[in-house]
Amino acid sequence: MASDRKKRTALDDEDEDADSLPRPREAPRQQAHAALSFKKRLKPDAVIMATIRALCRAEQEAKVEPRSLADLNLPHAFKEVADLSSNSVVTEIEKCILAAAKSILAGHGFGFNVPSRSSANQIYVPEIDRIVLKDKSSVREFANSSSVRKTAITTRVLQLIHQLCIKQIHVTKRDLFYTDVKLFQDQGQSDAVLDDVSCMLGCTRSSLNVVASEKGVVVGRLIFTEDGDRIDCTKMGVGGKAIPPNIDKVGDMESDALFILLVEKDAAFMRLAEDRFYNRFPCVIVTAKGQPDVATRLFLRKMKMDLKLPVFGLVDSDPYGLKILSVYMSGSKNMSYDSYNLTTPDIKWLGVRPSDLNKYKIPEQCRLPMTDQDIKTGKDMLEEDFIKKDPKWYAELELMVKTKEKAEIQALSSFGFQYLSEVYLPMKLQEKDWI
Amino acid sequence: MASDRKKRTALDDEDEDADSLPRPREAPRQQAHAALSFKKRLKPDAVIMATIRALCRAEQEAKVEPRSLADLNLPHAFKEVADLSSNSVVTEIEKCILAAAKSILAGHGFGFNVPSRSSANQIYVPEIDRIVLKDKSSVREFANSSSVRKTAITTRVLQLIHQLCIKQIHVTKRDLFYTDVKLFQDQGQSDAVLDDVSCMLGCTRSSLNVVASEKGVVVGRLIFTEDGDRIDCTKMGVGGKAIPPNIDKVGDMESDALFILLVEKDAAFMRLAEDRFYNRFPCVIVTAKGQPDVATRLFLRKMKMDLKLPVFGLVDSDPYGLKILSVYMSGSKNMSYDSYNLTTPDIKWLGVRPSDLNKYKIPEQCRLPMTDQDIKTGKDMLEEDFIKKDPKWYAELELMVKTKEKAEIQALSSFGFQYLSEVYLPMKLQEKDWI
Repeated sequence: MASDRKKRTALDDEDEDADSLPRPREAPRQQAHAALSFKKRLKPDAVIMATIRALCRAEQEAKVEPRSLADLNLPHAFKEVADLSSNSVVTEIEKCILAAAKSILAGHGFGFNVPSRSSANQIYVPEIDRIVLKDKSSVREFANSSSVRKTAITTRVLQLIHQLCIKQIHVTKRDLFYTDVKLFQDQGQSDAVLDDVSCMLGCTRSSLNVVASEKGVVVGRLIFTEDGDRIDCTKMGVGGKAIPPNIDKVGDMESDALFILLVEKDAAFMRLAEDRFYNRFPCVIVTAKGQPDVATRLFLRKMKMDLKLPVFGLVDSDPYGLKILSVYMSGSKNMSYDSYNLTTPDIKWLGVRPSDLNKYKIPEQCRLPMTDQDIKTGKDMLEEDFIKKDPKWYAELELMVKTKEKAEIQALSSFGFQYLSEVYLPMKLQEKDWI
Repeated sequence: MASDRKKRTALDDEDEDADSLPRPREAPRQQAHAALSFKKRLKPDAVIMATIRALCRAEQEAKVEPRSLADLNLPHAFKEVADLSSNSVVTEIEKCILAAAKSILAGHGFGFNVPSRSSANQIYVPEIDRIVLKDKSSVREFANSSSVRKTAITTRVLQLIHQLCIKQIHVTKRDLFYTDVKLFQDQGQSDAVLDDVSCMLGCTRSSLNVVASEKGVVVGRLIFTEDGDRIDCTKMGVGGKAIPPNIDKVGDMESDALFILLVEKDAAFMRLAEDRFYNRFPCVIVTAKGQPDVATRLFLRKMKMDLKLPVFGLVDSDPYGLKILSVYMSGSKNMSYDSYNLTTPDIKWLGVRPSDLNKYKIPEQCRLPMTDQDIKTGKDMLEEDFIKKDPKWYAELELMVKTKEKAEIQALSSFGFQYLSEVYLPMKLQEKDWI
């Protein structure tokens, strides 16, 4: 009995020693209470669906905003690219080479007219909510020691793209680099010229048949055709369908979904897929597993445009999560010439928002202190046009920077593993709690 | 005309200046020749298929080797885990807690018997070609200041797993951590205890319903069921099907493939998927996009076991590519207790092997010099049992370390974008050029 008592004492001691040991008793009770209070307030699914259906109808009836630069009467000219067919790309390349040949014959030498992609030539246009490229360009001359190599690389890349478009096959940037390592020397050089070539020909990078590797997955109420195969995303188990690297092989999208749920991370994606959230609330769930890749951005845009559905973003409550939303919505700086094709307008920020942390009573211990770098990133973002244009988004980011607290989507697991799919998201939709 | 001549001179100068400028003329000609010579030697597909069919038949007729430790008469005892149903896991947890309660009542205090996972308790067993755990274990006591926290964490993790198995849902390690951040403090602590719990209960980590995030994709001649959905991998476009994180939802595999092609990187995967390589040579193509994740390892093993097909590995010719093959075949050290379920025996190293660099005349400029770190990793691997047991593998690695040259799968693109699928792989299969 003595040893028994000793052990019991050890147990009691522990509960007192708050610094070195946890006090699990209080926290779970509070948490359970917070979780319960929201669960009770949930209305029947039919009521929640009516809310979303109204939004969905509004989306489908809305006139398409002037998203093209041509529709705006702006003081400067811009360089934007369009999706071109393989045949058109072949024609554009041939025109380009013909012009160079003519210039040589006319005694003006060999060169290409290349649009500038430097940040001085980039501008954020609030009317269309995207970063775009202005129309500055320069001549890349062969007979100039500073540009001779780049001119040679440009010519070789044009030749390779010409081949790809004739054969109708797709390759990665890495494949392209390896076709002539001796000339390109490192992949950075062929990659940069690839973007130049997109701008020169006025077509998207995917039109060049050079694709980035795929990372994204999709699941839910979506049927589409990929390279002739009919894909039914309601029958993709819990793993989902890998988003293909070449968007031009994707077509004939059909859906009875009411919205698209764009998820930052695969853990949340998995939870929603396993719970078949899309069968409770008809939707399409998509994730790029972190930083958005080109294939997922193109796929999201295509869904939004073809199906005319509202898009909700579910990201971590930190500057990085917001940055991810901004890339989907407004594009990234280094591909600004292609912002029209890569960006999805009007993504609604559903959660996890800084104001949710208190509203949903996320326990203190599931919040993380922001690092100095986080705070700096947050403050820098407050200065960006993308955030400044929307007072609600601005207020949320301001709150984050003020409280210096961040939280991951997973923090919701503190109320139970299925809290995300069973309480948090239905509640958000019911309360129209998006901005 | 003067300016024209000046430009032509610049052009000529360039060809002379070998240091700062490329000489594209010679290389492509040599390359084209090398590519052509192999293409000419290719026999009709039917002949190549007969070769693979023979291998496939041998694989299916082969007696299953003693892969279980129980079949071997070894001097020490081992700790291995098995796949258990959710119900059995629940029973095991209850047994474990009951034993602890009995121990408390008997005056021996509260504690768990936890197998040691330290490297001193790990051993490579050549007969089964895997790293396994010996049977050393220790008591994790609550009444001991050095182990009280770990005991509390272990109890909490057991309780959470109990919940998951009753609810039959799956979560990620990150979700698990967030259910009690205050207790776990950082994810490393809950992750480590999770592996302890696997060993304690004698079950695999996937049996605990805690899964890693998915990265892998599969395409080709395979049909299987995932969570009730029938998945046909011949109709998955070019993107393929994402491999699900929870292998226990995968079943009823059917295939008319002759082999499984395990590819290190997604660029090669994409090439083979777009070219529908699996329709020319019936096969299943799978990749984890780099470092193998648990889900892909489990999926590969299940395919090999259920379908009894030979597995060919296509990896970069560098120590890292070889390391990847070794993880698929022999397991990683930190999950050695689960090596039986995670490893796929007898993967054949198809390419790209160090000896291929000269054999297939990979141009000098597509080979990369190994870094000091690469060379060190390569030399360390020469000492590993996994390599030493196979003289052919040893010789290849020795050649790599001696020549100090590495090459990526993409280096084959120097002969044309489709060289991999149209020449290299068919040639390899025709010549039975695997080890």
